[in-house]
Amino acid sequence: MISVVIIGKGNVATHLTNAFKKADKVNVSSINSRKLKDIPTADITIIAVSDDAIEEVSSKVTNSFVVHTSGSASIKSLKNNTRKGVFYPLQTFTKGKKVDFNEIPFCLETENEKDLKLLEKAAKTIGTKIFSINTKQRKALHVAAVFVNNFTNHLYKTANDICKDQNVPFEILLPLIKETANKVEQISPKKAQTGPAIRNDKKTIKNHLDLLNKEQQEIYTLLTNSIQHGEKL
Amino acid sequence: MISVVIIGKGNVATHLTNAFKKADKVNVSSINSRKLKDIPTADITIIAVSDDAIEEVSSKVTNSFVVHTSGSASIKSLKNNTRKGVFYPLQTFTKGKKVDFNEIPFCLETENEKDLKLLEKAAKTIGTKIFSINTKQRKALHVAAVFVNNFTNHLYKTANDICKDQNVPFEILLPLIKETANKVEQISPKKAQTGPAIRNDKKTIKNHLDLLNKEQQEIYTLLTNSIQHGEKL
Repeated sequence: MISVVIIGKGNVATHLTNAFKKADKVNVSSINSRKLKDIPTADITIIAVSDDAIEEVSSKVTNSFVVHTSGSASIKSLKNNTRKGVFYPLQTFTKGKKVDFNEIPFCLETENEKDLKLLEKAAKTIGTKIFSINTKQRKALHVAAVFVNNFTNHLYKTANDICKDQNVPFEILLPLIKETANKVEQISPKKAQTGPAIRNDKKTIKNHLDLLNKEQQEIYTLLTNSIQHGEKL
Repeated sequence: MISVVIIGKGNVATHLTNAFKKADKVNVSSINSRKLKDIPTADITIIAVSDDAIEEVSSKVTNSFVVHTSGSASIKSLKNNTRKGVFYPLQTFTKGKKVDFNEIPFCLETENEKDLKLLEKAAKTIGTKIFSINTKQRKALHVAAVFVNNFTNHLYKTANDICKDQNVPFEILLPLIKETANKVEQISPKKAQTGPAIRNDKKTIKNHLDLLNKEQQEIYTLLTNSIQHGEKL
């Protein structure tokens, strides 16, 4: 049996707590980060709070092994005087939307091999995809995640705006959105590229720009140039 | 029984021909666009060639009803002297990769209601998602498709480059890529947005920029500003 305490009340804390509650080999309890009195002892204490709060919260925890769940904070941002680690589930969590932890990669970092084994054991009770990732690698993953999640979602929003302008249902694009995502499971994004930019189809590019507003044109032009530049490398 | 002739040898022509071959109520034959002699008569003649070739190829076809498959070409780019239409399957086709036409939206345009019914009947033999879309709407869809497909794929490539630089496997990002795509089936992209840009988390944004090369920084900054600008609207 592994005992886990989760500090925090946000999406990550809630989803993790619910997942561990269903796991046979874990005893989990949940603590509000604003009421840090009488924290139960535990094998693993998970601080799932905003990046800015990690230092302050961790400085108040005396448990033997404390980890945070952030993609961008260093392991050194933990200010407990005991063992430290990182337990970063790389996914976008939405309140009220079900999460399949079997599909979520856990990026783990510890100060020693024994703690890594312990975190792996805990992660395996709720998930299957477990990676040992150091702080530098995790920071790279976090910025890469912004590109494939926040920025990609913004391109979806831009497409939605374009559809709205012409009274076309956005749902027509959903199968293409899915196929674009699925394709890179099988072939690299570089090989998967198609369209007017990589073909250097100037006529279509000009026609497209004529349909867009100024902000959309800026995005279109920068990404088209970047696709063409990447092709030349 | 509907008779269909498909002119062209590219991905769209090949995938459409294969799909119609499996349909019970369609007789399909395939013609190379460079050998436009002895074209069999047909209820529907589908010209699946590059945009630039539509005018020339269609001018040589005397069949009664001729449609093209392009997202960006006007219905007027058809130069046959008979009835005209558009049969645009909105998807990214990859050579050798299986296509599920049940998942592909067909965007149809015709000059009259009777032809629309005929195209719908043909589309229903291979697919389920059928939309009546005029040229202006279709052009908007085509540019929107560039955002959700080519540009999104380029963000995947950029993320892949960032991972390579730090020796992190790109596969760690695949579940996030899928979830980002699946999310907009249920909530609008505007509501789905998360991350440092929309939170105006300047510290994380600065940390991210420090990890990127100049070209990646340009994309990061433009998309971050655009997310923040959209939030203010």
